[in-house]
Order: sequence, then C-alpha cells, then structure tokens
Amino acid sequence: MTPRFHNWHSSSTSFRVRIALKLKRVEYENVPVNLRWQDSDHDRPEFHALNPQANIPVLEVSGVRLQQSLAILDYLDRTYPDPPLFPSDALGRARVWSIALHVACEIQALTNLRTQRHLINELKLAQDVLVPWQQHWISVGFAAIERQLADSSATGIYCHGDTPTVADCCLVPQVYNSQRPVVGLDLARWPTIQRVYRACLEHPAIAAALPTNQPEFESPSGH
Amino acid sequence: MTPRFHNWHSSSTSFRVRIALKLKRVEYENVPVNLRWQDSDHDRPEFHALNPQANIPVLEVSGVRLQQSLAILDYLDRTYPDPPLFPSDALGRARVWSIALHVACEIQALTNLRTQRHLINELKLAQDVLVPWQQHWISVGFAAIERQLADSSATGIYCHGDTPTVADCCLVPQVYNSQRPVVGLDLARWPTIQRVYRACLEHPAIAAALPTNQPEFESPSGH
Repeated sequence: MTPRFHNWHSSSTSFRVRIALKLKRVEYENVPVNLRWQDSDHDRPEFHALNPQANIPVLEVSGVRLQQSLAILDYLDRTYPDPPLFPSDALGRARVWSIALHVACEIQALTNLRTQRHLINELKLAQDVLVPWQQHWISVGFAAIERQLADSSATGIYCHGDTPTVADCCLVPQVYNSQRPVVGLDLARWPTIQRVYRACLEHPAIAAALPTNQPEFESPSGH
Repeated sequence: MTPRFHNWHSSSTSFRVRIALKLKRVEYENVPVNLRWQDSDHDRPEFHALNPQANIPVLEVSGVRLQQSLAILDYLDRTYPDPPLFPSDALGRARVWSIALHVACEIQALTNLRTQRHLINELKLAQDVLVPWQQHWISVGFAAIERQLADSSATGIYCHGDTPTVADCCLVPQVYNSQRPVVGLDLARWPTIQRVYRACLEHPAIAAALPTNQPEFESPSGH
C-alpha cells in the first residue's frame, strides 16, 4: 500500500522527511496540510483525530499514523534500508543523530509557527520580535553545528562522510529556512555548513524535496 | 574503559540518560556539570572545548564525546542491547520515538534553562512570565501525549508495553520537572501519564536515576 504523507511544502519538518523519501525512492501519496498563521489545517479537530500530537508531518503506513519527523526518518531507514541514512558504526550513528537533534531541539523547536504564535498571541509581544528571535536561535545553533562539523575528520562532502544522512535531512531544511529573505542570515558565517548545504542542493533527491518543487507550492493558498 | 558521564542531577536531559544507564546496568564515572542561572559550568570555554554543542549531558566513550540525550539513548541501546529500550518492530519503534521526541522537541526545548534565560535577559520580560511559560508548554505537550497513550492498545504498564522504553526515559524526567512546587501542575489532568509515571517510579532502576539519588544532590552548590 502506498504510504500517505501529510505534509506542507514550507514546513521544515516535512522537508526533512521528503528528503528521506526521495533518497530512498519511496513512492507516496502527497496530502497537503496547509500551515497558516490563522486557521491552519493542523489546528482543526479532524486533523487532531488523525494525529493526537496535532502536528505535521504524519506518515500513514499500514493503517498506522506515524508522527515526529525524526521518528519517521528512523522508521524509513528500517523499512527501506537502501541507501542507509546512518553510518553503520554506533559512534558514527550517534554523531549524525546528535547533529539532527541539535537542529530539531535547539533551533526548529524554538522558531516554529506555534512558538511564534505564542510569543505574539499569549505573551503579547510586538511582531518585530519575531525576526530577531528566529535569527538568534538559528545563529546560536548553527555556530554549535559549525564547530562540530569543522572540528571532525568525520565530516565529508556531507555532514558525515560522502553520502547524505539524517544529519543532512535536518540541516538542509533549517539552512533553507534561514535563507528566506525575511530571516536573511549570511551563511558565510558558517563556512562548513555553507559548503555542505551547497553539496546537498546538488544532490537530485534533495533538490526534488525542495519546497518549490512540491505540487502544492503554486496553489492559490500557498505562501 | 568506564564511560564518563557529564551531567547534573536536576537536568532533565541528564535524567533521561541516567535511566537508560541504570536500566542497562552500565557502570559510569559521574562528572557533575553544575547548571545555574548565572556562571553555569556549561557556559565556560573549557566545557565548550569538551562539547562544541555546549550542552549537557555528554557521554565520553572510547575517547569520543557523545552529545544530545536521545542520540546517547540510541547509542546505549546499540552498545548494551539488554534490556532493549525499543520494541523490536519498526512501527512500535516509531511510536516510542515519537513520544520521546514530543517531550524533547515540544516541551523540554521550550522550557529549559537557556530558553528561560533568553526570555528574561534578551527579551527583557518580567520574571513572572517564567512559570506560566513552563506550565503552558508542559500542559499542551502532556495533553498530546495523554491522547496518544490513552488512544492506543500498545500502551501497557509503561508507555509501550510492559517494559520501559525511550518513551519512559523521556517522559519520567518531564513529569518529575512538572511536579516541582514552583511549576506545580496537577497530574490528575492526564490520568494515563499519571499511571505510567507511578509505575515507572516503582522500577528500581528508574528510582535510582532520580535527581535526589545522585551523588552531587546535597553538594553545597546544589539547588
């Protein structure tokens, strides 16, 4: 049965999983879940019934709905082992997880839509805090990842060696996000990240996963 | 060689890994890294030299320093497979990862020390925002996890079946944190989480990992 992938082109957590799906050549049914500041699809009761965690992406396989992008990456790697998204040694595996988790826990978790909404709607902060807020967490996180990549001989063309891993699946969407005009960070501050990112964009599977290459990108409600 | 574990009794990410170390009966050298609002050990240059990500916990094994608690949990499970921290099937594995990641990305990432510091020191918010901020993210996250646990026949004595998994390694420290007097959430709002948490505390390995049972707990600089 073809997996159903509930995602949105501009969602960076969706983008992580799309990279893995494309790398592993997994056919899937694309189900757009429109993320908006107000009246977002994932706010609706019918979506909560689909996913009790109330977030995207969701991968439906064998009648089961998987949530949390990193859990889905791990699942895909077990179920479609070729090409692998992890190095085969335990220490290398821990290294790529740690980079992926740094993006997930130290950057994306703090800068996503629901956190930005909370700052404005609940803490009543002015809209102009949002750009510095995003720039801060991305910059601190990228500085840490840059040190980790630059300090290690394990870094190759990609974050770990010469094939993409879950570290790249997570880093690429976060860098893409940081290059939106509204955030506008200068990637030259983190030269190893910049080099890895450019190599990733040249990989056909990663390019195919870009937000601009998704079917819903040009829909009238797209943003 | 005995692993060196850089951690702090009251750090919830440290607590996750301590549970796994105790469950798997891994002997380790305890290296306290004092977390404080000001002049925290992990802010120091010598700690950044040890861990480019500048956070705890860190597990030093075979001369390599592993960071990010979930990456360390995955490493420990590969290296010390008995007892396993994951169910053996891919769907079950994805389920326990998704619960662990919900705690890590949707609750802890938003409520940890550095995020609280940023709200006060950079956004110049009043100290009295910190308790509602923590209560909000914990409550929203627990509501999602409660739905996920209550809706599934896979939930057993613990989050998944009748042995502890990475889901419990992450949930227990977050619940413990939510029960500190300063946060003071009523756990009865999430009855399945409450039931699982109580079962976990009765497990000798999990009890041994509690903050109050760590050697540095009563040190003069403890808090």
